[in-house]
Amino acid sequence: MASLGDIGVSAAINILTAFTFLVIFAIVRLQPFADRVYFPKWYLKGQRSSPVKKFVNLDFRSYLRFLNWMPAALKMPEPELIDHAGLDSVVYLRIYWLGLKIFVPITFLAFAILVPVNWTNNTLERSNVNFSDIDKLSISNIPMGSPRFWTHVVMAYVFTFWTCYVLHKEYELVASMRLRFLASEQRRPDQFTVLVRNVPPDADESVSELVEHFFLVNHPEHYLTHQVVYDANTVATLVEEKKKTQNWLGYSELKYSRNQSKRPKRKTGFLGCCGEKVDSINFYSAEIDKLSKEIEAEREKVRNNPKSIMPAAFVSFKTRWAAAVCAQTQQTINPTMWMTEWAPEPRDIYWHNLAIPFVSLTIRRLIIAVAFFFLTFFFIIPIALVQSLANIEGIEKAVPFLKPVIEMPAIKAVIQGFLPGIALKIFLIFLPTILMLMSKIEGFISISALERRAAAKYYIFILVNVFLGSIITGTAFQQLDNFLHQSANDIIKTIGVSIPMKATFFITFTMVDGWAGVAGEILRLKPLIIFLLKDFFLVKTEKDRKEAMNPGSLGFNTGEPQIQIYFLLGLVYAAVTPILLPFIIVFFGLAYVVFRHQIINVYNQEYESGAAFWPDVHGRVIAALIISQLLLMGLLSTKAAAQSTPFLFVLTVLTICFYMFCKNRFESAFVRYPLQEAMMKDTLERTKESNFSLKGYLQNAYIHPVFKGGDDDDESYEICEEWDEESVVPTKRQSRRNTPLPSKHSGSSTPSLSEANL
Amino acid sequence: MASLGDIGVSAAINILTAFTFLVIFAIVRLQPFADRVYFPKWYLKGQRSSPVKKFVNLDFRSYLRFLNWMPAALKMPEPELIDHAGLDSVVYLRIYWLGLKIFVPITFLAFAILVPVNWTNNTLERSNVNFSDIDKLSISNIPMGSPRFWTHVVMAYVFTFWTCYVLHKEYELVASMRLRFLASEQRRPDQFTVLVRNVPPDADESVSELVEHFFLVNHPEHYLTHQVVYDANTVATLVEEKKKTQNWLGYSELKYSRNQSKRPKRKTGFLGCCGEKVDSINFYSAEIDKLSKEIEAEREKVRNNPKSIMPAAFVSFKTRWAAAVCAQTQQTINPTMWMTEWAPEPRDIYWHNLAIPFVSLTIRRLIIAVAFFFLTFFFIIPIALVQSLANIEGIEKAVPFLKPVIEMPAIKAVIQGFLPGIALKIFLIFLPTILMLMSKIEGFISISALERRAAAKYYIFILVNVFLGSIITGTAFQQLDNFLHQSANDIIKTIGVSIPMKATFFITFTMVDGWAGVAGEILRLKPLIIFLLKDFFLVKTEKDRKEAMNPGSLGFNTGEPQIQIYFLLGLVYAAVTPILLPFIIVFFGLAYVVFRHQIINVYNQEYESGAAFWPDVHGRVIAALIISQLLLMGLLSTKAAAQSTPFLFVLTVLTICFYMFCKNRFESAFVRYPLQEAMMKDTLERTKESNFSLKGYLQNAYIHPVFKGGDDDDESYEICEEWDEESVVPTKRQSRRNTPLPSKHSGSSTPSLSEANL
Repeated sequence: MASLGDIGVSAAINILTAFTFLVIFAIVRLQPFADRVYFPKWYLKGQRSSPVKKFVNLDFRSYLRFLNWMPAALKMPEPELIDHAGLDSVVYLRIYWLGLKIFVPITFLAFAILVPVNWTNNTLERSNVNFSDIDKLSISNIPMGSPRFWTHVVMAYVFTFWTCYVLHKEYELVASMRLRFLASEQRRPDQFTVLVRNVPPDADESVSELVEHFFLVNHPEHYLTHQVVYDANTVATLVEEKKKTQNWLGYSELKYSRNQSKRPKRKTGFLGCCGEKVDSINFYSAEIDKLSKEIEAEREKVRNNPKSIMPAAFVSFKTRWAAAVCAQTQQTINPTMWMTEWAPEPRDIYWHNLAIPFVSLTIRRLIIAVAFFFLTFFFIIPIALVQSLANIEGIEKAVPFLKPVIEMPAIKAVIQGFLPGIALKIFLIFLPTILMLMSKIEGFISISALERRAAAKYYIFILVNVFLGSIITGTAFQQLDNFLHQSANDIIKTIGVSIPMKATFFITFTMVDGWAGVAGEILRLKPLIIFLLKDFFLVKTEKDRKEAMNPGSLGFNTGEPQIQIYFLLGLVYAAVTPILLPFIIVFFGLAYVVFRHQIINVYNQEYESGAAFWPDVHGRVIAALIISQLLLMGLLSTKAAAQSTPFLFVLTVLTICFYMFCKNRFESAFVRYPLQEAMMKDTLERTKESNFSLKGYLQNAYIHPVFKGGDDDDESYEICEEWDEESVVPTKRQSRRNTPLPSKHSGSSTPSLSEANL
Repeated sequence: MASLGDIGVSAAINILTAFTFLVIFAIVRLQPFADRVYFPKWYLKGQRSSPVKKFVNLDFRSYLRFLNWMPAALKMPEPELIDHAGLDSVVYLRIYWLGLKIFVPITFLAFAILVPVNWTNNTLERSNVNFSDIDKLSISNIPMGSPRFWTHVVMAYVFTFWTCYVLHKEYELVASMRLRFLASEQRRPDQFTVLVRNVPPDADESVSELVEHFFLVNHPEHYLTHQVVYDANTVATLVEEKKKTQNWLGYSELKYSRNQSKRPKRKTGFLGCCGEKVDSINFYSAEIDKLSKEIEAEREKVRNNPKSIMPAAFVSFKTRWAAAVCAQTQQTINPTMWMTEWAPEPRDIYWHNLAIPFVSLTIRRLIIAVAFFFLTFFFIIPIALVQSLANIEGIEKAVPFLKPVIEMPAIKAVIQGFLPGIALKIFLIFLPTILMLMSKIEGFISISALERRAAAKYYIFILVNVFLGSIITGTAFQQLDNFLHQSANDIIKTIGVSIPMKATFFITFTMVDGWAGVAGEILRLKPLIIFLLKDFFLVKTEKDRKEAMNPGSLGFNTGEPQIQIYFLLGLVYAAVTPILLPFIIVFFGLAYVVFRHQIINVYNQEYESGAAFWPDVHGRVIAALIISQLLLMGLLSTKAAAQSTPFLFVLTVLTICFYMFCKNRFESAFVRYPLQEAMMKDTLERTKESNFSLKGYLQNAYIHPVFKGGDDDDESYEICEEWDEESVVPTKRQSRRNTPLPSKHSGSSTPSLSEANL
């Protein structure tokens, strides 16, 4: 076990790494060539334009203030941040803030009470086992059956109550933020629109007629209009292909413009590797023409073929009240027909899944549940197989002529050190994609729901394979086997006993994965390199450059589960080895600042779900609380302090009740839309704009993106943009663009702009 | 272990007992004095009047046909039975019918395949253990690790699929029956009415004004009227007391009329045991006057005191559509305020619980959950305490002067044999009442919901204490301890191994509890005795006699869980010891006939929930299926046939999926009211009766029963009655009463009527 000194060295190294990242970032961000990588958000909003063409910033005065992005990131007030980046981002930041609010007081309390209680024993000194200073601070230092364990039980109560108090406050706040956000929003198509799925087939009427008749009959005074859903996946593929070809055309044209002496050529065959050589520019232009025609033909086909109309439709109502009513009620006696739900906002829709029938949904979820179970517990088996193939002997057998090369000591060392890990590494890199794919197969229809679902899966995977896997060494599969053959008591005990022993491991984990990971996030090394390459090879116009920026987005499906592991570690170790807590606090603090900066300057908002993910976050913190209580129970029962078990059990029951209370009290704010709110907005709007043509406004809101704008994709892109700005993203933006003065508080943006232009 | 012969003897005894009951019933029911005990339903419906005053039926011809109640009970067709006794009763009968449909084919299959497979081994003969013929027919006779176990696995699949098929058909049928029933119903107040709870307090407006304003604003085109809820529990107590006094008055008057020489007297003191003697008739008349005045005063007080208005109201709408909308949607941003749900029909309301605030509800459910847990697992502790006190020595110590009496051998034997069991017996008799009380504390607002909830609790209690308790001998508390200290695998194995050994016990259980219990039910010994006593002491007028009848009702909260135990036994033993199945079938068949007879002739319908209990029934049969699969898994893994475990596990997963599928597909039919249906009925009604005054019809529908009819309770009773007939109980009844001819199919009622009149 590591001593305090070892931890100190490790901490120093990691702090140095993180600090290096931050310094590099602070310098690189001032360089004009990287401006679009570190401030893409402002470019997308049109509030920043390319700096005067200098490649390197030579003004040394600006370097003196190289760390001022931190206060700048913290300066923008929350309401303005909501306008700037949407509610999702702001509430996402509140997860880190929640971590700070929970753990700062807990840390003080733990250091004031638990550390002295643990320290003033000499159990470890009297025993023969090796121990370190960290163990002296932990629960391990308390003798068997000591009454001092009551301190830990009481502290577990205090920690739980504090956590629940903060969680409750936060849930209340987020719920009210969401409702205020929804209430303050301008008119949006999804407020009036309901998605109807599983329209039953009818021999006499088309889907469109059927939908119209059904809603004219059953919501006679409220029905306004509807849009059917086309199966346009082929068109979408063709559009994608055309875009790629356009990129190649741009590349060729740029190449030609740089070196006018020689027109670029390419081969026509497979991947441009074989076949006859032709002029690239001509070839790609012809390709684009061909694809445009194909797209148009396919579009016509989809529009005219009744079979490409899916049994689903977006139905719009005259009032928000009527839409709220239709979304929350059951339409027919068969609940699997005419299923209604709120339409997601247009840019949030995952069009591919709109037409999955109900029965198929059940089966899909079953299959994915089974697949996910196997993925979580047995993923190690195929990887071990690959590893066993990918060793020196395996390669030598497969490709014997490489033998002399492989046998060279340097290469052999690389292969031996590198190959066994690479399969696992690749798997872990692709894991979020795999989980997202699984969620897509399950048939969710909005990107936000997909991300939430994928996040839930990722959390379970991390919980089983990182947390439990690190505590009980052995694969998840072996754990599963143990779980089946051990009693519930024994399982909790086995894990509980190992908890204090793994403290140093998790401290290192926090520093390497948490601190350095966050610092690496702000550096954006990969987007920087990709942007520079694109900028050199592809970019001709400002528009191209805009497209070459890859601002990225928050990535709820990977980010949130990784935060949750720190909540879990903090809560589990709070009563056992409090020395871990400061490391967690540093993580939350650093991550809060870094992500606030990223949200202000970098990430582009893909959709706005109005913080719909908060119930998941809340639920997982509660799960962490319960896990921490169970493990403490197991640990204490091996310390001859089993009389505390009932007390901790009561605490667990209370925690579950708290969860249920919060669910009843707040969750509906994230799922339903109260009629009173709807009615208020309707009335307000009717008096303010009595002659607004809602039908015209809603007519084309829910058209598949590939049908927007007719022939030209560029045009469609423009329309899409314009439409976005008019209706989807809310509030102040237009007015701000019209006023030449920057907003009073946007301190973070304006200084960096001027700096970059110096 | 019992041999086939022993079982035969036991069966003979039980068949004889049951048969004796049936014969006694068949004779007693022909006696005029018992007519009101065995045909109260017809009296209540006004289709039968007291026979000519003969006390004993002397027409011997009628005795020859003494068993013809059985075919008569089966003759009434289902639609007419729905009119006669309501949908709840008919669907309740279908539970027995479901048992027959599941188990008859399973029995044939098991006897055709499993019995030969089990029989043609000689494992038991070669082993040294004692065994009986029954064991030769069971899975115990198959040698360890024999491939023959695959037969049992395959049969488990077949049984499961058959059960699921029947369950699915039945769920579909019951759902459609419910929807047809709701659709065919005439206008009922609850179709237009929604119960609003947790109206927030307001300083300026009364609850009534607040409700009116809220719904005028948020459902402007649909709101019709509302009724506030009064806290009238004191009035209800006084009315109850008055009724009791009236009974005593009637008794005294009857006594006087029989013996005119002496006016009855009573003492005024505590329970009529002490104090001065007064004339009973005068005393009770004065009491009644006093109570009437008190009731009136209290009523006035409740009406005028704003504090006795609870924060709840029944809100009625102009259309069913609007009521369906309001019941299914959330009204305000705080989901715990203005909570709306369908109003139960007026006679189904449990008025006492109407004003429990939301926070209190959560706490109440928590407390009851904990209490129920302790009741289930630790109920044996207080009973053991009482038992240890209630032994001979304990009594001798407590009341030493009784020692000579107790020491007498006969009395001692009685005490020793009787006392230890009596505490348990009393507890078991009161158990349903305790469980119902617990459900009432939980705060459900309709009697039907209370009964469903109590049934769920009773089922769990029976499952743990009767089923598991019989298999693993030992108290539930010890089982719980085992469960915590054994692995999941071991628990299933322990139970699985004991299953075949307990077959004879459960056969006897089925005969004693099932057969004899059902036969006892039809005899109605307790109601018979009580009616005869009342008839002699209290009854003066026809109305009194009507009140003296105690028709009873189905009692879902005790009856259904007891049926479920037979589903569980049947499914568990189908693959293990098929010899049990015929006994189960006899139970279901006998119970079906008996309860059909009782429903036609005896039970009075307390409320109509439209078969809202079916999802519970369905869920518990599925639970039985899953338990049976798990136990088979455990049993086979101890028989060196563990390779079958994955196959049975897959079956369990499939069963759970089936459950979820059914839940999604059908459950909403029992919870929600589809808008299409509502709209159809609204439209139909609007065209048929365009000038019906709905407001007048709904104005007084939801008034607390004690406020009905003003001053006189008798009158209020009448109004209640009349109102019931006009609006609550549906359809053909009025027309049938007007036509002098009996309905074509009512064979069961008319013959017995004429028989009784002979």
